[in-house]
Parts: sequence; C-alpha cells; structure tokens
Amino acid sequence: MKIALAQLNYHIGNFNANGEKILNALLKAKKDGADLIVFSELSICGYYPHDLLERREFIEKAIAKIEEIAKHCIGITAIIGCPSINKASRGKNLFNSAWILQNGQVIDIIHKTLLPTYDIFDEYRHFEPNREFKTIDLYGKRIAVTICEDLWDEQPTSNEFAKSRLYKRSPLEELKKLNPDLVINLSASPFSYNQEDYRKNIMISNAKKYGVPIVYVNQVGAQTELIFDGGSMFISAEGKVVDELEYFKEDFRIIDTEDTSGSRVAPQTDTIENIHDALVLGIRDYFGKMNFKTATLGLSGGIDSAIVVTLAVRALGAENVRVFLMPSKFSSDHSISDAVALAENLGILYDTVNIQPMVDAFESSLSPVFEGLKADVTEENIQARVRGTLVMALSNKFGNILLNTTNKSECAVGYGTLYGDMNGGLAILGDVYKTDIYKLAYFINKDSEVIPVNTITKAPSAELRPDQKDTDSLPEYDILDQILFRYIELNQSPDEIIEAGFAEATVKRTVRMVNNNEYKRFQAPPILRISSKAFGFGRRMPLVAQFPV
Amino acid sequence: MKIALAQLNYHIGNFNANGEKILNALLKAKKDGADLIVFSELSICGYYPHDLLERREFIEKAIAKIEEIAKHCIGITAIIGCPSINKASRGKNLFNSAWILQNGQVIDIIHKTLLPTYDIFDEYRHFEPNREFKTIDLYGKRIAVTICEDLWDEQPTSNEFAKSRLYKRSPLEELKKLNPDLVINLSASPFSYNQEDYRKNIMISNAKKYGVPIVYVNQVGAQTELIFDGGSMFISAEGKVVDELEYFKEDFRIIDTEDTSGSRVAPQTDTIENIHDALVLGIRDYFGKMNFKTATLGLSGGIDSAIVVTLAVRALGAENVRVFLMPSKFSSDHSISDAVALAENLGILYDTVNIQPMVDAFESSLSPVFEGLKADVTEENIQARVRGTLVMALSNKFGNILLNTTNKSECAVGYGTLYGDMNGGLAILGDVYKTDIYKLAYFINKDSEVIPVNTITKAPSAELRPDQKDTDSLPEYDILDQILFRYIELNQSPDEIIEAGFAEATVKRTVRMVNNNEYKRFQAPPILRISSKAFGFGRRMPLVAQFPV
Repeated sequence: MKIALAQLNYHIGNFNANGEKILNALLKAKKDGADLIVFSELSICGYYPHDLLERREFIEKAIAKIEEIAKHCIGITAIIGCPSINKASRGKNLFNSAWILQNGQVIDIIHKTLLPTYDIFDEYRHFEPNREFKTIDLYGKRIAVTICEDLWDEQPTSNEFAKSRLYKRSPLEELKKLNPDLVINLSASPFSYNQEDYRKNIMISNAKKYGVPIVYVNQVGAQTELIFDGGSMFISAEGKVVDELEYFKEDFRIIDTEDTSGSRVAPQTDTIENIHDALVLGIRDYFGKMNFKTATLGLSGGIDSAIVVTLAVRALGAENVRVFLMPSKFSSDHSISDAVALAENLGILYDTVNIQPMVDAFESSLSPVFEGLKADVTEENIQARVRGTLVMALSNKFGNILLNTTNKSECAVGYGTLYGDMNGGLAILGDVYKTDIYKLAYFINKDSEVIPVNTITKAPSAELRPDQKDTDSLPEYDILDQILFRYIELNQSPDEIIEAGFAEATVKRTVRMVNNNEYKRFQAPPILRISSKAFGFGRRMPLVAQFPV
Repeated sequence: MKIALAQLNYHIGNFNANGEKILNALLKAKKDGADLIVFSELSICGYYPHDLLERREFIEKAIAKIEEIAKHCIGITAIIGCPSINKASRGKNLFNSAWILQNGQVIDIIHKTLLPTYDIFDEYRHFEPNREFKTIDLYGKRIAVTICEDLWDEQPTSNEFAKSRLYKRSPLEELKKLNPDLVINLSASPFSYNQEDYRKNIMISNAKKYGVPIVYVNQVGAQTELIFDGGSMFISAEGKVVDELEYFKEDFRIIDTEDTSGSRVAPQTDTIENIHDALVLGIRDYFGKMNFKTATLGLSGGIDSAIVVTLAVRALGAENVRVFLMPSKFSSDHSISDAVALAENLGILYDTVNIQPMVDAFESSLSPVFEGLKADVTEENIQARVRGTLVMALSNKFGNILLNTTNKSECAVGYGTLYGDMNGGLAILGDVYKTDIYKLAYFINKDSEVIPVNTITKAPSAELRPDQKDTDSLPEYDILDQILFRYIELNQSPDEIIEAGFAEATVKRTVRMVNNNEYKRFQAPPILRISSKAFGFGRRMPLVAQFPV
C-alpha cells in the first residue's frame, strides 16, 4: 500500500487555510498514486486549541470542514485529525479523533485512548478517552489507527519523582490482539532538545515489541510557545527507520509499505543547531500566524539581545527588524559600539535614544517623595522601565512587535525588571540557559563574525549602576545553570542537588530565588519552549505559597 | 455521634502553620466532647498546590506532618485531606485522599474518585482516580467518606455547550450499595457569585436522593486568585440544612448526628455584599500569606481605583495603604479633587506627582524618531506607562505592593495599557463587570459617602486625550457587559447572542475585541475570581489562533 505522509504547519482555528493545505496535499497524493494519505493530530484545527474546544461554533466549523474535505476523497482514502462529539449522555463533550474519509464520505471515526494531562498537555480537560479498540480494513490491510500518546503508554520521564507508566492501559497491547498489519499514528509532539531521541526510540521499540510497522505523522510549526518539529517516520516491523521526513519544515512523502529496503532519513544535526532552527521557526510562525510583519527590540551590546536580533533577522528578514540603542550614564562605550557593529553586520535600521533625560525627569519628580532616602533597586528599575516604555512606543507607533530577550537563567532567578526588560510579545530565549546562549552565539558566528566577539567574551552586566556585574548578585552561570537544570527539568529536591556535590548555601539561595519569583514569571510573555520543562503553561506553580525550601 | 466541622484558612505548603491550626482545632474538639473532627480537602497542604505536587519533598513533608498529627488523635478520630502515594506500578503518582486518624495512627486512607479537570481545576494532572468503594465504621456508624467533586457527578453548567454529567461513574450510587449511615465530604469549593445556590442544592438533593445525612466541610480563605467561602454544612437525610457555618470566615462547630431538630444557618446576604466580602478576603489573604503589609495604587478620581482603594483599606487598614495622584494636562479638575476627597475620607497618605515632565521628556527624546508622524495611541500609552513606572517606583522604594484596578469589561476588550495601568501584583476587579462596579460603589456608600458621588455619577474616561470618554471606543457598558457575560460566562456563540436580540455589528465587534486581546490578558496580574468564568487560569485560550468570528 502506498501511503502519503503529510507533515504540515497548521494555524489554530484557521479552518479555511488548514483545509486548503489538507486538500492540496490530498490532490497531490492522489496524482502521485497514493492509496492513503495521513495527516497529523487535530490537523483540521491545529494543535492545541485549548478552551476554543469548549465553543460550539469552533467544533461545528471543524466538522463542517472535514465533511467538505470528505467529498474530495474519491480514489484516495484520508485519515485526518479532528475533534468529534461524544454523543453519550455521560462524559466529556468531545473525543480527540482520527476521521477516516473514503468514497466522498466519513467512513469511520477512531478516538484517542491516552490523553496526556501533564506539562504542557491538557487533553483530559477537553476529551473523553476511548475505551473500545478496533482496526479498520483498507486495501487488504488491517490497520490500527492511534493518536500520539496512544503509543506512549510507557515513557521515560525527566521528573525523578514520577512514574514511567502513567496509564492503566496500553492501546497497542489491546490492538495487537486484533492482529494489525500496520499501525498508523497521528501526532502533535513538540520539540524539546533534551528528548530528541526519546520519540524515535519509542516508535522503534513499539514496532519491534509488537512486530508491526508504524507510520507516524507529526505536526510541524510553532503555536505560540510550542514548537512542533515534524520528523514524521515510517518504521518497519523490525524497528528500522525506513523513512524520516524533515525537521522544522513542512514535508510530504509517499512510502510503500511493501518496500522497507531503503533508509531515507533526515540529516543528523546537533543540539545547538536544532535549538537555533526551533527558535527561528518559533519567531517566524508567531509573526506569520498573528499577521505581524515587523519586530523591534532594544540592543544593549550584550549577548542576549544580540542573539535575539540575529534570530529575528533570520526569521523575518533584515528589512523587518528595527532596533533601539538606549544608553544611559552607566553604559560602557563598548556597549554602544558593539550594538552598532551588530546592527551594521545585520543591515538593520537602528535609532539611538539616550535614556538620561527621562530618568532624570522621574528622579526629579520623585525627589519630594523620596527625600532623604538612599538610591536602591528603585532607581535601577526606573532605567529598565524607561527603556521598556521607549521600545513600546516604537512598537505602538510603527507596529513593530517587541521581542523579549530574557534568558532562562535570569527568568528562573528573577533577574529582570517587570514592565521593563521583561516586556515583549514573545520571549525568544526564556527557555535557553545562559550557558547555552554562549553556544548559540558561537554557532551563529561559525562562518563569519555576525555577533561582535567582544559581546560574547565580556562579563555579563545589566549596566544599571557603576561597574555592575551579573555575578554581584548571582552565582557563576556554569554553576547556576546546573543547579537550575536539576531543580527545574529534573525536579530534584534541594537535598538531592546538594548530595550531587553543589554547595548547600548556593543551592538553597538559588532555589529560593526561583520560588520567590513565580509572581514575576506569571506576568512574563509567552516563552518559546525548547526543553522538557519550560516556564509558562507547562510549569504551574502557586503564587501565594510557602515552598518547601 | 458528635462531629466537629473545622472550617479553616490554610496557607499552601506551609505545613507548620497548617498543622498547628489543625492540631488546635483537634484539641478543642476533643475538649468539647466531639467523637470525630473533619477538615477540608487537602487541608494539610492547602488547596491547590499545583505542580508542587510533583515535588518529592513537598509530598514527604505533607505526609510527615499528617503522621505527626496522628499521634495526637487519642480519644478522638480525625479525617484530614492530604495527598497519598499511589504505590501501583501504573497510573499517576498520587491520590487526593482523606486520611483517617485514630488511636495515634493512620487507620485508613480513602481516595477521591471524581477529579475535576475543567475551568480552574487541574486535578487529573496530578492524581489517579479512586476505583474501589468502601465505607468506614466509626462509633457504631457506617460512614461514606467522599471528597468534593465526588458529590458533583451531576451538576448544572453555565457553559451551554457542555454536559451536566461529566463523569461515567457516580460515587454515591456505588457507596449507597454499602448502606452508609452518613456521608462525609471534604471540600475545597471556591466562591462564585453566579453559583451561590448550586452547592447547597447539590448537597440537599444528594441527601434526599440517597436518604442519608451529609456533613460537608469546605475550605475558607483566598489562594491567590481563588476565594474559598466556607459555608460548611450538616444536612439531614430529609435534605434539611441543620447547620451552616459562616461564609468568608474561619468557623468551627460541633454537630450531633442524632439531633436534626434545629436550623442554625448563616445569615442571608445579597450578591453584591458577597462579592465585596470575597474581594476584601482576597486582598487580605494575598498580603497575609505573601507576608506583605502595605499596598499602593494610583488614584485617578475614577470609580475603579476608588473601589480598589476602599477595599484595600478594609482589608489592610488605612495606615497600610498609600496612593499616588498622577494628573496630566488632560486630567479634569474634578479628577484631582475627587481623588483627594476619597483619600481624605479614607484617611490614607497620598502624594501628587504631575506626569507632564516625564511625558514631555519621552516625547522630546522620541521626536527625532517620530518626526512628521501624527499623535496616536502611542502618546496615550506613554502617559499610562509613565504612571505605571511611577507607582512601581513607590512600590520598590517603600515595599508597597501595587494593586491593579482593571475591571472585567476593560480586561475583556483590551481597554488598558500593558506595562501601564495593567501593572500590579494582584488585580482586584478583573472579574467584576463595570455595571457591577457601580453596584459595589453604592454598597460601599450605603451608610455614608466614602466614595465621592461625583466619582460614581460622571461618565467614565481614561483621560488620555482631550474630552475622551470610554464610549468613544466601546459600546455602552450596560450593553457591553451583557454581551460579554453571554460570550464569556455562558460560552454562547456570537450567533446565539445576536439571536437573543443584540445588534450584530456590536456583538461581532465586541467578540473580536475579546479574542484579539488574549495577548494582553496573558501578561495581566492574577485576578481575584468571583464568577463562574474569570480570566486567567480557568480560561485557557491560544494566543496565535484565528478565532471563529
């Protein structure tokens, strides 16, 4: 049987655009001789629509669109992800389903069994789980149709206080009893750099364990924070990756289930390159799908803003990025010259506005209220907020969307000013630790010096008071990031981190900073997610709480 | 049997403070002759700890604390809400449990069956549901112990595209087969003004349907956004409310299961009074549990800030509230005089800082960049952001926490400036529609004029340009709020709202404003929740999406 794998980039709720993409792929697959075409999970509406799933008109439009597409399924069969209505009187309103379209009609609907409800996943909020297993017969083959998590009943977990078997049931164990010739899996599985091999290994081990080939079709493209990386696959019953589609790009391929001889796999890339490509895709799709065109940010001469502006230029084009240099009396000369050199390397428009007149106006107006009091963090925050207000003025006046440059280390410990440098429509580096920021800089500069070397090599500083260095108030980043990774990604307890060899005082101080800054992160922009545990929707912490450190 | 109902206000994760409260109630109950004392759901750790439940040290501390309390259960039995570990190899790590303590030991643990996972509830994210039903025998009675949602298998829903029976199973149907003499329910059921009677009716109808008395113990107190209102009850098998504890306060009462003759119910209050009390409690607990003491905000002379400052004074005391008046050249004279009158009525410290010098500094510094361009919303936002920066400077310098004054109508349609008037640690009115704001003002003024009448009667205006009125850009609030309520609380489709008699253009424009401002609300402060559908954690919408209008 010839099966087309349609790895597409959907826009949530844009039924017309998604429908057109699906239809184009369908017609191409038919022309190229495919018997069947498979799309990804919830492809009609894009993954994940969240509480739009609770809206009647949203579901009606999704189903109307799939019925429209069904009419074109003549001479080809399609499997498309789309919610369906649970008609039983009890249970959640919807199923997360795979619709089987053939001969101009919907011939069957198969529901997802395992509904991920952890980290960034919220599926049990909206869907009733499937409880009955069946296969479908297509072109002489018995096919087990599954959806994403259905193949993940056993999974590794990076949270060291969690189970590897979250579910009571294993859909493949049930389906295996029906002797399928092929497993098809519709997925929406997001990228995370520390789980790159998990997914492929899950597919391979399932194929081997059950002795059945697997066709896996994943979504590609970014949906606000979440970046779906594609990498759809055809795996033989022996667990060999026969076909692997591209990563971070739309792709389309017709595989022949009878031919498992070749091995058309995607080129190997390293982790930093993947992170780079993920972030560029994240920016491009945020702008494209929001119908925005141009971006702005403040260039400080530091490494974070240097990387963000470079990624923005790669995502949107130099002509669509415009920056502000906003020096103060505490800015070093090299901050300005490094920022100018970068802007010129990238060929982007920049303006310089000295913040001192506005800072002075605030300090002068506040002096009667602050009389007799010493300068403290208040005055530092005023500088950050003047800059935040300036770039927002550029954003408002010219329609450029402000990109936030906060990195994960800062975001974790609250080293940043709310309503100042924490401003922005999208946080590009909020899931990238400072130590990885340096690796990204070297990767960007691998062929030529885009980011001035001085920006990379100088000691990090917020430049909000004379001779300030990040390490005045924070541990060295190579220590800090290791502690943060263990606390956030691995969910280790402070005692476990101390036992691993880190200084008790540093661990406790770091963990307290993380816990005490939930309130800041609550108001942070959405953060492009590249790890297994990003700040934001996938990490839900109470604000008013006493944390166990 | 004599049962003590302990309706307490817990601090999430503060095991020592919660343990001490529990122990004090236990000793009092024992002294007063109770056989059994019942605490609310997850009382050891407070409801709801969110992803703290994923941390090993959090669970270990909770269980250690319950084992410590068990030692004191001599001559009295206690039922306490606390997570327990699921020792099976498959399934989620935890159960949401009721621990039965007697004779210095844990004698039984009963798990919650129905795990609410909708609106603000996320329980299936962390807990495995119970699947086996049993009763416990205490003092000659057979008791069915249940937890909150277990009694809500059938519930009314305000979302018109949702089922009233979310679950396949009914715990009481199962438990009834075991012939219980009494049902005990440990709850953490938050207040919402439009569901005030639901809860009592659910309890009454369950008691009647199954012919069994119910002891219901609810949490009281605010946990960031969520306000738990108490109102614990003892209901006879005939469905009579024999005892009802106070609302919005800690309370303690010993009931006698053999005596259902009396009727000691809480005094009747009206909706606006409940909202008022809920908001005051919300402010007080946010400050108390965060260990904050003093608050600040900008007084504009308008009604929203007038109400917030009054509620803050009622929650924290006049000596702990300090405000800024921040007039501009667009401020009317009455704005300043109304604000001054209010501050003097409340007896709070106020400072006046004219924003014009800072606004001028921004406009002058930006003039080379903005040369030849007309004034637009950019200049209005600069004013709002200068004010935002000023109040944050007061907050930073004196440690006063900024209260946000945005109301639900504005928050819905995006009528507010990010990093300006949307600043704040906690949004007090973000779940109160403008039309209810007026009712709150009259309620506050019912005995004497606290809020100047002119503040209540003048036309609402942001005063960011000459002669600006809210109705320049928004429908009249009495129309707007009705459309918003139907769209947000009732989840009606735009077509349904139009069919109900609202003008098509107004409905579509309103709905588009709501949808287009998800990005602003994403960065808003936590909002005190008083309705069945507040913005924030309980309403999860995608940002990058095309909405179905």
